[in-house]
Amino acid sequence: MAPVAMAYGRVCVGLLLGRAAPCLRALRVLSGMTVSQIDEEVAKLLQLKAQLGGEDGKHVFVLKTAKGTRDYNPKQMAIREKVFNTIIGCFKRHGAETIDTPVFELKETLTGKYGEDSKLIYDLKDQGGELLSLRYDLTVPFARYLAMNKITNIKRYHIAKVYRRDNPAMTRGRYREFYQCDFDIAGQYDPMIPDAECLKIVYEILSELDLGDFRIKVNDRRILDGMFAMCGVPDEKFRTICSTVDKLDKASWEDVKNEMVKEKGLSEGVADQIGEYVSMQGGMDLAERLLQDPKLSQSKQACAGLADMKQLFSYLQLFQVTDKVLFDLSLARGLDYYTGVIYEAVLSQMIQAPVVAEQNGALPGDEASVSVGSVAGGGRYDGLVGMFDPKGKKVPCVGVSIGIERIFSIMEQKAELLAEKVRTTETQVLVASAQKNLLEERLKLTTELWNAGIKAEVLYKKNPKLLTQLQHCEETGIPLVAILGEQELKDGVVKLRKVASREEVDVPREELVEELKRRTSKLP
Amino acid sequence: MAPVAMAYGRVCVGLLLGRAAPCLRALRVLSGMTVSQIDEEVAKLLQLKAQLGGEDGKHVFVLKTAKGTRDYNPKQMAIREKVFNTIIGCFKRHGAETIDTPVFELKETLTGKYGEDSKLIYDLKDQGGELLSLRYDLTVPFARYLAMNKITNIKRYHIAKVYRRDNPAMTRGRYREFYQCDFDIAGQYDPMIPDAECLKIVYEILSELDLGDFRIKVNDRRILDGMFAMCGVPDEKFRTICSTVDKLDKASWEDVKNEMVKEKGLSEGVADQIGEYVSMQGGMDLAERLLQDPKLSQSKQACAGLADMKQLFSYLQLFQVTDKVLFDLSLARGLDYYTGVIYEAVLSQMIQAPVVAEQNGALPGDEASVSVGSVAGGGRYDGLVGMFDPKGKKVPCVGVSIGIERIFSIMEQKAELLAEKVRTTETQVLVASAQKNLLEERLKLTTELWNAGIKAEVLYKKNPKLLTQLQHCEETGIPLVAILGEQELKDGVVKLRKVASREEVDVPREELVEELKRRTSKLP
Repeated sequence: MAPVAMAYGRVCVGLLLGRAAPCLRALRVLSGMTVSQIDEEVAKLLQLKAQLGGEDGKHVFVLKTAKGTRDYNPKQMAIREKVFNTIIGCFKRHGAETIDTPVFELKETLTGKYGEDSKLIYDLKDQGGELLSLRYDLTVPFARYLAMNKITNIKRYHIAKVYRRDNPAMTRGRYREFYQCDFDIAGQYDPMIPDAECLKIVYEILSELDLGDFRIKVNDRRILDGMFAMCGVPDEKFRTICSTVDKLDKASWEDVKNEMVKEKGLSEGVADQIGEYVSMQGGMDLAERLLQDPKLSQSKQACAGLADMKQLFSYLQLFQVTDKVLFDLSLARGLDYYTGVIYEAVLSQMIQAPVVAEQNGALPGDEASVSVGSVAGGGRYDGLVGMFDPKGKKVPCVGVSIGIERIFSIMEQKAELLAEKVRTTETQVLVASAQKNLLEERLKLTTELWNAGIKAEVLYKKNPKLLTQLQHCEETGIPLVAILGEQELKDGVVKLRKVASREEVDVPREELVEELKRRTSKLP
Repeated sequence: MAPVAMAYGRVCVGLLLGRAAPCLRALRVLSGMTVSQIDEEVAKLLQLKAQLGGEDGKHVFVLKTAKGTRDYNPKQMAIREKVFNTIIGCFKRHGAETIDTPVFELKETLTGKYGEDSKLIYDLKDQGGELLSLRYDLTVPFARYLAMNKITNIKRYHIAKVYRRDNPAMTRGRYREFYQCDFDIAGQYDPMIPDAECLKIVYEILSELDLGDFRIKVNDRRILDGMFAMCGVPDEKFRTICSTVDKLDKASWEDVKNEMVKEKGLSEGVADQIGEYVSMQGGMDLAERLLQDPKLSQSKQACAGLADMKQLFSYLQLFQVTDKVLFDLSLARGLDYYTGVIYEAVLSQMIQAPVVAEQNGALPGDEASVSVGSVAGGGRYDGLVGMFDPKGKKVPCVGVSIGIERIFSIMEQKAELLAEKVRTTETQVLVASAQKNLLEERLKLTTELWNAGIKAEVLYKKNPKLLTQLQHCEETGIPLVAILGEQELKDGVVKLRKVASREEVDVPREELVEELKRRTSKLP
């Protein structure tokens, strides 16, 4: 803990036991801490407070999820299931298999793969045994899997959670625990065909999810490196300048140039040359033009990248997706392992951040109406598998990752705006009774329905009121009620009621299953 | 590290750089370490070796997954998907919603919930911020979720991975990272109705998965506690004696009695009285008999438990599952939080452990043909949610957890024994060509199919041989090939070939999608 934070901590132990909130902003200004640092301190202090016991001396729990994480309630899960089904449907349509890997890896498996982002990796405590870290993405575990199993050829998808000790911005769908949906093609193939399929997949998924207009930006690391070389950037600064260029989607050129010159030590002239290139956007025509560019055409690397870019666009035309794809020289991508084509999809739509405070302690008001930014990204990484192979044997790979949390955020807000009624169960019929002492009969009928594969519920009360039973249907969207009474039992029938229209009809008991199947197959 | 282990470590650094394996067993005997401790040391030393560099001074990776974890390859995933679909289908048939919680919780959320097993919890490293642990089960996060959101009523399932630093036995399906499939009912209801539904669900799932014969043992914590009290066990020893009784499924009565007397300080007479009870098994009749038992009938707790047991069996009769359910007084369950009915399902079948060595460094030969043991377990825990509520407000809960890894192990071995061909993709058609220079035409047709929702693949080669394309179909089980050639393009048709029968027929291009849909809807 830094001295400032410690002093702050001591002040606040007392404050938190009383009323701390109003003074937080003031203290924040006084101490010069970042919001994130304050959050961390608050969390620690609250835990400390809990351990010390509440005001009555009793142990009090801090009832929350870990910072930057959240629970999914049944409604959110229903939306999540819908989104996953769309995405998995697309992956399967393209012939992908799926694999799964453990949530943690040997620490050294992750070492040296993420450049400056490595500090965001969650480590496990050394409790004896191996040193472990939570996975940071699904790409490095995938490369480890290929090398370990000597697989040179696979088209696979992997949907799982990854972990980053980043500064969360949960209203924008940025969490410390979040899902990635990855699709990758490994294997030695003719250039740009798998690369083009990855872009086709992004196009299909974003279209199907109906998230409004979007753009897919593409570039190539070889074009960037060639451009850096021709503009006079020293070799050893390629990756760090690349990281700076990557900020252009959020920062102005002035700020980016400033960082290049003041922090990273480029001359103004070099930075300005870069500035000219990174403002360029286009399609196949731009690739053709740049192949004639007096400077870029001198770089073998840049030419290889530009030739492949042309080829890529020709395949994208066949795949009918060029209307959304943009060759953009400012696209850089943060990660170290890319070696060729890179891409990123952004939604055009702005989303309204909810006015409610963040759940987990972040200060509200820092975010308002913001662009959700990138919702998919990826590229070619031909060297990563070789880093794991004892003999350095390479397996060329290209892939894409769908940033599903941001998509969830948008879908949730859409559902809320439209006041859509999201069903969280699939129950087709409630078995009810209008009279007392019929629990046994209700359970017997429910058993018949379950055994026949009908989705059925029964209330866990001996004598529930009919009204209570009907209300349960209305609340949870159950469309049908099978009502038992003395008379129905005597007649060997069940009264089948449609909840929406209140229509009732007597159905012979032995025909009930068929009748329910007939009716529920017509339901949406 | 214990001194012995350290000395052992120093000896072995040298050994491992040369040939260490033959001396491991000898050292193990000399040092008195457990197999598990040795594994941990070996893992550390291998990591150390990797950091020091290999013999050629180059950095060498240890290419493995963390101890006790595994990857799932596409075949295993196909089996897993099938099992999950069965289980989720059952949960949905019973009207359950689903939720999800983060993989880690505040450390103190897990504190004091698991009794002696707490030492198996994975902690995260303190990297600043909150102290976190990986979840040990899904029940405690569920209780935390209910308390945090003030939910008093829910029927939910949750399928997710949990983490235990246990001694793995992977051939028996015991891992450190493993799935749990939990179904729980929270709410204040009439006694034993939700409890009976949990048992019905276990019955349905184990029957549908077709795993051979099984038994579901039931007991009640109140019956156990009443029995302990009446036999003369001091109150403070109830939980620890319960843990000892729990070992009866693996150990003999002699061993269990020994532990009670020698380790836990019971008198022989008390232990023998317990011994008489825990040998009893039966159905509703046993509950009725024990209600008349001179000793047990003196205990209010035992009587409450026995009366509920009678009630439970009456509901189980209505649910038509009593043929597999056994009231067994030796069933105790390890966890602290149970307060009422407890149950556990065991398969009758023995499985043959594969002869191959364990993947991740465990010594082979320690396990051979073994019973897979418990595949589902659960019970009533009425106090857990109250532990999280600031006012201690209780929410009664009952639930069951399906131990899916053991079920995977059995299904995998079954698939292997039957030499079943498991498809790992769902591709319906491969777009192929018999001649050169038709890549563009193949991509165009594939695009048409994808856009129409057909699951289609195309090889990523400019000029693949027809034989190569057909072989790909045979290997991956793709049933149909759409073949393009100069003649077909001229005639506006596609040659549609059935891979299995080699039948070919020309289909007009504009009818291809319909024809494929017609054919694939008939496929299994």
